[in-house]
Amino acid sequence: MEVTLSLDEVRALATRTLTALGASQDNADAVADVITAAERDDCKSHGLFRLPGYAIGLRNGRIDGKAVPVVTELAPGVVQVDAKGGFAPLALNVGRAPLVAAARRQGIAAMPVVNAYHFAALWYEVEALAELGLVAFAFVNSRSYVAPAGGTKPLYGTNPMAFGWPRKGRPPLVFDQASSASARGEIMIHKRDGKTIPEGWAIDREGRPTTDPAEALAGAQLPFGGYKGAAIALMVELMASGLTQSHFGFEAAAEDTGDGGPAKGGELLLAMDPARFVPGGDAGASQDHAELLFARLLGLEGTRLPSDRRYAARKRTPKEGIRIPKQLHDDILAYTK
Amino acid sequence: MEVTLSLDEVRALATRTLTALGASQDNADAVADVITAAERDDCKSHGLFRLPGYAIGLRNGRIDGKAVPVVTELAPGVVQVDAKGGFAPLALNVGRAPLVAAARRQGIAAMPVVNAYHFAALWYEVEALAELGLVAFAFVNSRSYVAPAGGTKPLYGTNPMAFGWPRKGRPPLVFDQASSASARGEIMIHKRDGKTIPEGWAIDREGRPTTDPAEALAGAQLPFGGYKGAAIALMVELMASGLTQSHFGFEAAAEDTGDGGPAKGGELLLAMDPARFVPGGDAGASQDHAELLFARLLGLEGTRLPSDRRYAARKRTPKEGIRIPKQLHDDILAYTK
Repeated sequence: MEVTLSLDEVRALATRTLTALGASQDNADAVADVITAAERDDCKSHGLFRLPGYAIGLRNGRIDGKAVPVVTELAPGVVQVDAKGGFAPLALNVGRAPLVAAARRQGIAAMPVVNAYHFAALWYEVEALAELGLVAFAFVNSRSYVAPAGGTKPLYGTNPMAFGWPRKGRPPLVFDQASSASARGEIMIHKRDGKTIPEGWAIDREGRPTTDPAEALAGAQLPFGGYKGAAIALMVELMASGLTQSHFGFEAAAEDTGDGGPAKGGELLLAMDPARFVPGGDAGASQDHAELLFARLLGLEGTRLPSDRRYAARKRTPKEGIRIPKQLHDDILAYTK
Repeated sequence: MEVTLSLDEVRALATRTLTALGASQDNADAVADVITAAERDDCKSHGLFRLPGYAIGLRNGRIDGKAVPVVTELAPGVVQVDAKGGFAPLALNVGRAPLVAAARRQGIAAMPVVNAYHFAALWYEVEALAELGLVAFAFVNSRSYVAPAGGTKPLYGTNPMAFGWPRKGRPPLVFDQASSASARGEIMIHKRDGKTIPEGWAIDREGRPTTDPAEALAGAQLPFGGYKGAAIALMVELMASGLTQSHFGFEAAAEDTGDGGPAKGGELLLAMDPARFVPGGDAGASQDHAELLFARLLGLEGTRLPSDRRYAARKRTPKEGIRIPKQLHDDILAYTK
C-alpha cells in the first residue's frame, strides 16, 4: 500500500518530524530541503526513506539537532566547516557561499566538512555549485561495507564521488556514483522485497559470491569495475576522511550503534571557476566547447547524460506528487506521536 | 630476440635519439627521464616503446623539439603552462615548482597544461608531487577510442586519471588508470602476438562484442565498469580538455595524421597540501592516520597497494637492467642513422 504526497507535504512532514524531535528550524529546513529534492528527482535512497534514520539520531542524542556550524578559513583556498556534531546539510549550506567566493578568488578551492552526520546526497551539493557556474567534486565515505581488490572482508565505505559541470541555460551535468557495484540501500530494498540481487554485487561472510541480499549485507559489497573501482574507493576514503582528519570507514564502523542513523564522518568538496582556467577569463568559451562534446555524445544512438533521469523526474513530480510505502509513512508519523 | 640495457643506457639512447632529431637538451632530457623511469618501473607502455612515436613527431615537424614552455599565473591557485607545441614532460617539469608553491600557499592549486604533445605517464607526475608531500590528481585525454555508456561508436579517449598520496619515509601511494577496460597498447600487443582479447574490452564496428584485437581497434574500446567507468571517462575529458580549452578526443582524432606520434592535447594537475586542510597545519597527523588504513588494507588476505608492483620493479631493474625487443632497438637506432 502506498501514500501519495505533494512535494510541499514531503517538506512539511520532514520539517515537522525533525523539529518535534528537537532540531532547530535551520537544521530541520536544511535536511528537509535535501529530502524534498531527492523525492522530487525520484532519488528514493535520499528521500523520506532516510527520515527515520535522521529521527533516530536525534531521539537517542547522537546528533545535535541544534548544532551551529562554524566556518574557518584554513588557507586562502581551503574553507573548513565544522558541523559540531549536527546534520551535514546545514554545514554544507553554511559553507557554500565562502567556498564559492574562494573558488572565484583563487580559481580553485576546497571545503573539508568535519563532525557532520550525513547520508551524503552528493549530487545535491555539486549541482548547487555547478548552478553557480563552478566545476565541482564531492567525496564522502561511510562505514566499512566494501571489500578491497583481492580481499574478502569489508574495508571501504560505499564511497560515492560526485562531479558537476555547469551548462549555459540548462541544468548542470551531474553524476554521483558509489564506488561499490550497487548502493547499499538497493540491497536493503531487495531484502525487504524478498528478491535476489544480481551477481557481482556482493560476497558472503566466507568471501563466496552471493545473490542473497541478507548474506550480502552480512558479508561484503564489491567495488564496481574490479580493481579500478577499488582504487577509486581508496581514493575517496583518503579524500573524504584522510584529508579532513575524519573517520575512515573502519573507524566509523567501530562506532556504529546499529540504530540505522547516519554515520559521523568527513566530506570534501572541490570547486573550480572555469573562467580562471583560461587566459582572458572567458568561462563561456569553455561551456560552449563542452556543449560540442555533449552534442556528440547525445548524437550517438543509445546514450544519455548521467543526470537526465533525475531531471526528467523533476518535471514530473511537482504535478504528480510522489509515492512512498504506507508503512514508511506510518513509521515517520510514529516519531511525532 | 631481446636486447638488455642498463637504465643509463636507456636514458642515453633516448636522449641521443631525440637530440639527433633536433630536440633541445632540455626537451630531450625531460622525455628521456620519463622513458627511463617507465622502464625502471617495468611500465613498458611509457618506456622505449614510445620513443619511435616521439621521434616521428620531431622528424615530420609536428612537435617543436626546441619549444620553451611558458608559465602564467591565471589566478592565485591556477598555474597554466603553455608547452608551445613541444613535449609535455618539459612543460610539466617547468610548471612543477610554481604549482607546488601555489598549493602550499593556497592549500590547493591547479595546473592546466596546454599545447603539449604527450603519451601521458600520469603516475610520474603525481608521484613527483606526492614525493613533495602533496596529494595530487592528474587527468588527460587522448583520441576517441572508447564508446560512451549505451553507445557503440568511439567518443572518449582512454582517459586516464592518476592519484597520489604522500607517505612518511616510504614512496607515495599512486594509481594511474585508464577509464577504458584495457589500455589501447594492450590490444595492440595482443594483435601483434596473434592472441584474442578478453570479453568486455571492446566491440567491433557494428557494436558487437569482439575478442579479435583487429576488430577491436577498428571498432570501439569499452569503459571499465560499465556506465560508472563511462561517467569517469566523461569527467576526465571535461577536466583535461574542457577546463584547459584543449582538444576533446573527437577533435584530436580529427587531426590524427596516423603517424603513431603523440596527440596534442590538454592535461590538468591538481595539488593539495594536507597541512592546510586541518587546523594547526599538522600534515604528519593526516599521514599517520592514513597509514592505519593502509595497514588494515594490507592486513586482509589477497590485497596490495596499487603502486606496489611498480615499486618492486624499481628495486630490481637497476641491478638486472631492462629487456626490449631487438626489433624495437633496431627501429630506434634507425632514427639516428
